[in-house]
Amino acid sequence: MAETETLAHSKESLALAAFYTQWGEEAVANATGGLNPLTLLRYQYDSWTKHATEPSGVQYENLETDGVTGIWERPTGAAADRVILYFHGGGYIGGSASGHRKLVGHIAKAAGVDALSIDYRFAPEVPFPAQLDDALVAYHWLLAHGYTPSQIVLAGDSAGGALATAVGLKLRDAGDELPAAIVTLSPFYDTEGVGDAFDFNAGNDVMGNREALAGLSSMLLTEGGSMKDPFLSALNSDPTGLPPIYISFGGHEVLKDGGTLFTTLARSKGVDVEYVESPGQQHVFEALAGRSPEADASIASIGKYIRKHLQLS
Amino acid sequence: MAETETLAHSKESLALAAFYTQWGEEAVANATGGLNPLTLLRYQYDSWTKHATEPSGVQYENLETDGVTGIWERPTGAAADRVILYFHGGGYIGGSASGHRKLVGHIAKAAGVDALSIDYRFAPEVPFPAQLDDALVAYHWLLAHGYTPSQIVLAGDSAGGALATAVGLKLRDAGDELPAAIVTLSPFYDTEGVGDAFDFNAGNDVMGNREALAGLSSMLLTEGGSMKDPFLSALNSDPTGLPPIYISFGGHEVLKDGGTLFTTLARSKGVDVEYVESPGQQHVFEALAGRSPEADASIASIGKYIRKHLQLS
Repeated sequence: MAETETLAHSKESLALAAFYTQWGEEAVANATGGLNPLTLLRYQYDSWTKHATEPSGVQYENLETDGVTGIWERPTGAAADRVILYFHGGGYIGGSASGHRKLVGHIAKAAGVDALSIDYRFAPEVPFPAQLDDALVAYHWLLAHGYTPSQIVLAGDSAGGALATAVGLKLRDAGDELPAAIVTLSPFYDTEGVGDAFDFNAGNDVMGNREALAGLSSMLLTEGGSMKDPFLSALNSDPTGLPPIYISFGGHEVLKDGGTLFTTLARSKGVDVEYVESPGQQHVFEALAGRSPEADASIASIGKYIRKHLQLS
Repeated sequence: MAETETLAHSKESLALAAFYTQWGEEAVANATGGLNPLTLLRYQYDSWTKHATEPSGVQYENLETDGVTGIWERPTGAAADRVILYFHGGGYIGGSASGHRKLVGHIAKAAGVDALSIDYRFAPEVPFPAQLDDALVAYHWLLAHGYTPSQIVLAGDSAGGALATAVGLKLRDAGDELPAAIVTLSPFYDTEGVGDAFDFNAGNDVMGNREALAGLSSMLLTEGGSMKDPFLSALNSDPTGLPPIYISFGGHEVLKDGGTLFTTLARSKGVDVEYVESPGQQHVFEALAGRSPEADASIASIGKYIRKHLQLS
């Protein structure tokens, strides 16, 4: 590429591709023996927002009560009685509220509301849908502690984005009042790799590919379980009646057609979907919050969306 | 042990021994092939305060300027014009301001002052004394940004405790005005394993032992360098003229005689040393801040000491 050619993405954002590439190289080195691969992967996922900045003006507090554990991210001047319930990513097998703390802190700050970022049990030790069960417990904990559904936005990245959506489907199925909105960052909707992006982004996505998807699938399910489960893959759901959904994807992701296909499906069922694609970006590119202009632009947009749906501005 | 027997240490504090034991087991597994051992160790050290709570009422901010990088820990209501300059532990080969954030946040909150926790270069890629050079640059950065020596407390754990002490020695050698005090948590003073504690705590310390010390020593030095270097081991220094020093050790540490021997030496040279040993505790047991009564008691005591020497109460 000529140096004068305009880049579709910032130089800063390349740091995430380098970071994920390093994860892959570590996994390859470890495959010759050594650590349990899950141990390494969980160290990596716990470091997910290593390259994000500390968001100034945010305080943190552990929540450990009533079967719900996680971290409160509390921006200075946050609106009272509004909350983002956040589910971290990590393929249902790793990640943590702690490892995603800076990302969620930036999102909470951009929205001007507190976030509760929860931890949940992991596959393969505890297969799906335990993760969804834990997410629902956290949602009901918020209701039991004074929040109304319209004061809550569900949010998450990767598998956590799928969890946020699945919680919406469960509440809709139950006929419950629904949360104000759902916000997803690179949601793990395309659990079967049906999207063309698995092919045309094969050389662009430094983390995701069909082999990784197959490996992950083998860890998530109990006997008789299926990656077609609509609570795993919103692509197989009937989204009718879901609240407004915001979906952010990076243009270089193999998973991104999960976003485009779901957007088409959900809109056909009358759901208000805002799909935003950031060119040249990797999976959960917002993990570079405070570092890359794409991450910051996405988070600013998400913050605005949340404020609007929580009727804060 | 009979169940009714009084324990010398809390049940909660055992979580750290379990955590360090897991690190050791991971290192053994990895030794059969796999990751670069330093890669694993740096993941482990970056997770050092994983089991600490988030200290409420503390905000964080990255500092990246003038050759100094790190994290500001800013408690609500912190005294103006006072600062703890903190050096994380990790044997000069790992650890990070990020991985120690919660520990330093708790200390800053207990003292009621801001802390600046810096990152520094690592051996073996960059051997000692580069780490001390970086520590001195950070200290002079504070002076250049309005702090006077009497408004600064140097602090650190493990190798960072040794760095805090070595900075004091360098300033004393230069005839500079000295910081208000030095606070060390399990400082890495006994770099040669001369203390009896290496023998009598061999079965108690789940992290430190002579083999680990030898392995570490081989990574720190350039040709001609020595673990007897007084800037590596305060046991070989002349501490005359150092400011008041607070030293915290766990009773189960192999390194603890570095503390007792240094205390005797420094007091003989007229230095005001407060040595506090917490029975049954592991290396840098304050890493369980918010979780174990021993960690919380030590941090409360350290906070009081810092306030006194910064003339805040």
